[in-house]
Amino acid sequence: MSVVKKRKLDKTRQDRLYFDSYSDVTIHEEMLADHVRTGTYRTAIMRNSESIRGKVVLDVGAGTGVLSVFCVQAGAKKVYAVEACSIAEQAAQIVRHNNMEDRIEVIRGTVETVELPEHVDVIVSEWMGYALLHESMLNSVLYARDKWLKAGGLILPSKAELYIAPIIDPVAEDRLHFWYTVKDQYGVDMSCMYDFARRCVMNSDITVNSVTVEDVLSHPARFAELDLHSVTVDDLRSVQGHFRCESFGSAAVNAFCVYFTVTFPCPDKPHSLVLSTSPFKPETHWKQAVLYLDVSVDVVQDTPVTGTVRMYPSDESARHVCIHVDYTIGEEKKQSKTFSIPDWSAEAQP
Amino acid sequence: MSVVKKRKLDKTRQDRLYFDSYSDVTIHEEMLADHVRTGTYRTAIMRNSESIRGKVVLDVGAGTGVLSVFCVQAGAKKVYAVEACSIAEQAAQIVRHNNMEDRIEVIRGTVETVELPEHVDVIVSEWMGYALLHESMLNSVLYARDKWLKAGGLILPSKAELYIAPIIDPVAEDRLHFWYTVKDQYGVDMSCMYDFARRCVMNSDITVNSVTVEDVLSHPARFAELDLHSVTVDDLRSVQGHFRCESFGSAAVNAFCVYFTVTFPCPDKPHSLVLSTSPFKPETHWKQAVLYLDVSVDVVQDTPVTGTVRMYPSDESARHVCIHVDYTIGEEKKQSKTFSIPDWSAEAQP
Repeated sequence: MSVVKKRKLDKTRQDRLYFDSYSDVTIHEEMLADHVRTGTYRTAIMRNSESIRGKVVLDVGAGTGVLSVFCVQAGAKKVYAVEACSIAEQAAQIVRHNNMEDRIEVIRGTVETVELPEHVDVIVSEWMGYALLHESMLNSVLYARDKWLKAGGLILPSKAELYIAPIIDPVAEDRLHFWYTVKDQYGVDMSCMYDFARRCVMNSDITVNSVTVEDVLSHPARFAELDLHSVTVDDLRSVQGHFRCESFGSAAVNAFCVYFTVTFPCPDKPHSLVLSTSPFKPETHWKQAVLYLDVSVDVVQDTPVTGTVRMYPSDESARHVCIHVDYTIGEEKKQSKTFSIPDWSAEAQP
Repeated sequence: MSVVKKRKLDKTRQDRLYFDSYSDVTIHEEMLADHVRTGTYRTAIMRNSESIRGKVVLDVGAGTGVLSVFCVQAGAKKVYAVEACSIAEQAAQIVRHNNMEDRIEVIRGTVETVELPEHVDVIVSEWMGYALLHESMLNSVLYARDKWLKAGGLILPSKAELYIAPIIDPVAEDRLHFWYTVKDQYGVDMSCMYDFARRCVMNSDITVNSVTVEDVLSHPARFAELDLHSVTVDDLRSVQGHFRCESFGSAAVNAFCVYFTVTFPCPDKPHSLVLSTSPFKPETHWKQAVLYLDVSVDVVQDTPVTGTVRMYPSDESARHVCIHVDYTIGEEKKQSKTFSIPDWSAEAQP
């Protein structure tokens, strides 16, 4: 299960792997069954029906076309559902099955290469990857915005925010403790495995995991915000910000958790609508990104945990996100660690 | 999550991937924590202490060296712990930590290339992969047997058996049914996705999964037996046999489950000792191999399910097992399907 030496993939192969992976039904099932995700998008689209009714919409990375159908239900005159991978065939079938072929045009291709017959009033897209930016599909949304969105057009969602919090991951603690239990179980002292296990478990992979509320050790801190109307592809090369948290109580911090929210404007309502992947909110298929420290650090109540987070595309694959964290816990000296999502395509089987 | 076009890996790269994957702590933790596995090996070694005491043992693919330590605890004079990957360093440390460096010699290398100073009385090895033969480490055990085992020497375990049974996998059924529920959830009719979903879910990947007792639809049938004292590497190129099962009652068969047992001789006991991965026994980390039919088939009580299973190494990678099943369910005409373990090393990320 370990990660073998990462190979540098050429761009074409990267794209092929990326788009092929979405051809399978599993990911679409997972995304649709994620009611927080799909339900919030549906509500957001319905609440924006004033801006959608009679208008032209571009759905970037349409998948099965569910958001395109929602837009028609909200009154859209025309939806261009652009999808690069073969699931576009199923999307077209679903559009026909729902008698919307006069309103939704499924176009197979990348949004960077397709030609639309007109500019659009609205862009809708579910572009968020693990830790928000993994897969960097946001680049495609920004490209579409600059090329196809009319001035003053609407983007759904319109804002993204990134958060960080120190956590304790008890599973990692249990896994390390395991090596002290082998002697009792089998009469073989394996406590000397602890350091090796720590290096393996507390590694620099970004782990996608469900963080439990009790394991979050402070109020999360927002460290970055992206306004989708103004952010540029160049800005995404380095998304960064500072954070400061204060521990709720005595605990051993062994990781950070990073998560995001995206916000939909709601013109007729006092509040905007937020799709949150916070551990304090109902679980989504994005879960949270967990970044392990090399060693755990004890904190007491109000111990400050401060630092800087920077997210940027990996050298090996522009679709893979790296997260660099500089952090200081209490009186400890400043530490730095760079994390990345393991490149499963270059990984050995278990 | 889909499998991209499989690449043919050259042998060196295959071996590197295979041995590297065992350097990480996770797989060793999983194997040691599997008490059915490790506990049964420990009992088997202790019960064979008559044959081990004062003797020379070869541990093929020693990993953390736990079986080597058991052999010393059973009185072995000398154990050669042969391990190809870097976990050998941890094994050496564990041997020293347990004060057995005079008895256990950890040798880093493949058993095909290492030189031992003497022939051995006993070979012990935990070589079993998913569906028994995945990873085909048994080849190495047989090589070691032919090269290093004294005539009349002991092999632990000494026998392996393969079983098959028709099952219903309710998770697959639920996943397919999901597409009929989308309309109620979101007002979008996605029932036309059923066939696509069926082709994706009921595919030809060997799925490693825990089969629940209630989902097994007949008594399992044994279709092959390997006597480790006499089986040859050539025999392993095609391990096959017939099976005949009769359904317990009315159900929809949507898969076969394949599992194995290995048997240790117990000279002083009336019964031999069996390490079983049957769904009717406590769960192991091997779980069971699940092979989906293309479409489910209804059976009633006593409907015969008969056929032939053949297991053989994949063309792409000799370490990957393929399973070909010819089967007839009741009055249906004969069907054939070939399954293989997905090549994760050539797979896209989700």
